[in-house]
Amino acid sequence: MKIQPLHDRVIVERLAETETVKGGIIIPDTAKEKPQQGIVKAVGPGKMGKDGQVMNLTVKEGDKVLFGKYSGTDVKIDDNEYLIMREDDILGIIKD
Amino acid sequence: MKIQPLHDRVIVERLAETETVKGGIIIPDTAKEKPQQGIVKAVGPGKMGKDGQVMNLTVKEGDKVLFGKYSGTDVKIDDNEYLIMREDDILGIIKD
Amino acid sequence: MKIQPLHDRVIVERLAETETVKGGIIIPDTAKEKPQQGIVKAVGPGKMGKDGQVMNLTVKEGDKVLFGKYSGTDVKIDDNEYLIMREDDILGIIKD
Amino acid sequence: MKIQPLHDRVIVERLAETETVKGGIIIPDTAKEKPQQGIVKAVGPGKMGKDGQVMNLTVKEGDKVLFGKYSGTDVKIDDNEYLIMREDDILGIIKD
Amino acid sequence: MKIQPLHDRVIVERLAETETVKGGIIIPDTAKEKPQQGIVKAVGPGKMGKDGQVMNLTVKEGDKVLFGKYSGTDVKIDDNEYLIMREDDILGIIKD
Amino acid sequence: MKIQPLHDRVIVERLAETETVKGGIIIPDTAKEKPQQGIVKAVGPGKMGKDGQVMNLTVKEGDKVLFGKYSGTDVKIDDNEYLIMREDDILGIIKD
Amino acid sequence: MKIQPLHDRVIVERLAETETVKGGIIIPDTAKEKPQQGIVKAVGPGKMGKDGQVMNLTVKEGDKVLFGKYSGTDVKIDDNEYLIMREDDILGIIKD
Repeated sequence: MKIQPLHDRVIVERLAETETVKGGIIIPDTAKEKPQQGIVKAVGPGKMGKDGQVMNLTVKEGDKVLFGKYSGTDVKIDDNEYLIMREDDILGIIKD
Repeated sequence: MKIQPLHDRVIVERLAETETVKGGIIIPDTAKEKPQQGIVKAVGPGKMGKDGQVMNLTVKEGDKVLFGKYSGTDVKIDDNEYLIMREDDILGIIKD
Repeated sequence: MKIQPLHDRVIVERLAETETVKGGIIIPDTAKEKPQQGIVKAVGPGKMGKDGQVMNLTVKEGDKVLFGKYSGTDVKIDDNEYLIMREDDILGIIKD
Repeated sequence: MKIQPLHDRVIVERLAETETVKGGIIIPDTAKEKPQQGIVKAVGPGKMGKDGQVMNLTVKEGDKVLFGKYSGTDVKIDDNEYLIMREDDILGIIKD
Repeated sequence: MKIQPLHDRVIVERLAETETVKGGIIIPDTAKEKPQQGIVKAVGPGKMGKDGQVMNLTVKEGDKVLFGKYSGTDVKIDDNEYLIMREDDILGIIKD
Repeated sequence: MKIQPLHDRVIVERLAETETVKGGIIIPDTAKEKPQQGIVKAVGPGKMGKDGQVMNLTVKEGDKVLFGKYSGTDVKIDDNEYLIMREDDILGIIKD
Repeated sequence: MKIQPLHDRVIVERLAETETVKGGIIIPDTAKEKPQQGIVKAVGPGKMGKDGQVMNLTVKEGDKVLFGKYSGTDVKIDDNEYLIMREDDILGIIKD
């Protein structure tokens, strides 16, 4: 990853959502605020606490995560689209 | 549960509300902000305090809980619908 | 009580307000934000402080309390209606 | 006083404002946000600080105080009207 | 002064603003949020800090101060009009 | 300077902006939220921290500073116009 | 750099965005809230913590950074346009 996120930010690559298909008809996803999935590509060093101590992040590179549909900021790096969000916007880690 | 919630979040499976029936007529639930019940399916490790110490959650897997109708974010995992919310959105634990 | 409130929440059973009667005519209560009375049915263990220490609540089961009209969330437990609110929404304890 | 206020709340009995009279005509008070006077009837034990220590209130029972017109919540106790407000809503103590 | 302000509040007596006169025509002051001047008549004991320690105020009785036009609450004490504001609403002390 | 700013406030004398001139035509400045320059005329003693310790300001009298166009409050002292703002509204110090 | 940013502010020189060209047609960038790139030209000494200790910034002069499109305030220094923003508005550091 060419970007090193600052503080408590993480870079996530959005996974394409498998669209629901019923009888061959693709149903577009128009639901709002739907959580989404992605792969963590880079994590920041952590947020600095009140006492100057850095608090490391919980997620790590490679984690498959769940986040709200409108979380984060879209960034384009080398023609790939990523999301940069704060770790607190991540709802959970998807285990396989 | 395939999802490990982060920090102070918990995953809850909503219990179907028994609809009130009067003389055979099902009365749909249209009341707003009505609390609801669910079963805790997974809990986060706890929120990190100002001093870097993790504060564990009070609820645990299997707890039957009461929460506000619009608390949390709906997520779909393996065709099942769950809610991810912060522990602070849970009003109480239902004892049997 | 079947519900154990979390953190600094308390469960209150609303006392029916004695409606003012003048010459046999019942005057309905339409005033807004009028405080109300209730009996505390269950209290949470207390809110966790910044240093991880639990701060116990002041009110206890059986206390007759005064609270604002729109404080708390209505919950229905075994066909009884209760209010779940944070202790800070309670204005005072009524002594007999 | 039948009510024991919680935390940093105080119960105040509003003093009737002497209406200004000019040439026998009573001028009703319609000014907004005008501070008012009252007598403190009961005080809470104090607010709990971050370190779990209770911080006592400054005002005490019997103090004549000045407060903003819309401060506090009106409560009716035994047919008397009182105000319950946080100590921080009190502007000052009136000395005689 | 008959009023003892609480905490970090101060009582200020507004100085009449000398209206600008050009060629004998009085130009009324209609500008908004214009700072104003006053004399401090009484000061509170100070705000209580998080650790329970009182932090004394910087201004003292007799100080000529500058404050924003809409700072504070107007109070009438013995037919004199004063302003009660928090010390933080005072912009500076005017030296002679 | 006749005014001693309180806490973390500073008094700044706005520098006249050199208007851009193209071919002899003066282009008026109508851009909004444009930062501006000024000279610090007086600084407050510093803001009191949570632990009662005063935290001194970084800017000092005579500093040429950059600030947002709508920062601060305009004050008129002895027919001169100044700005009183909190140090945090100052974007940077201009070195010569 | 002629400006020394205060506290946790940084000065960034915006990099011109390479516009996407398809078949010779330049597609103007009208997307909103798109992150942008820039070079850090100067950094503040750090924000003062609650305990009076300065917390140094993570970015340093020369860093190529990514930030939100509407982050910061535009300033013009010696006919060059810069952005002054808080470090927290910087999303990440671009590595080469």
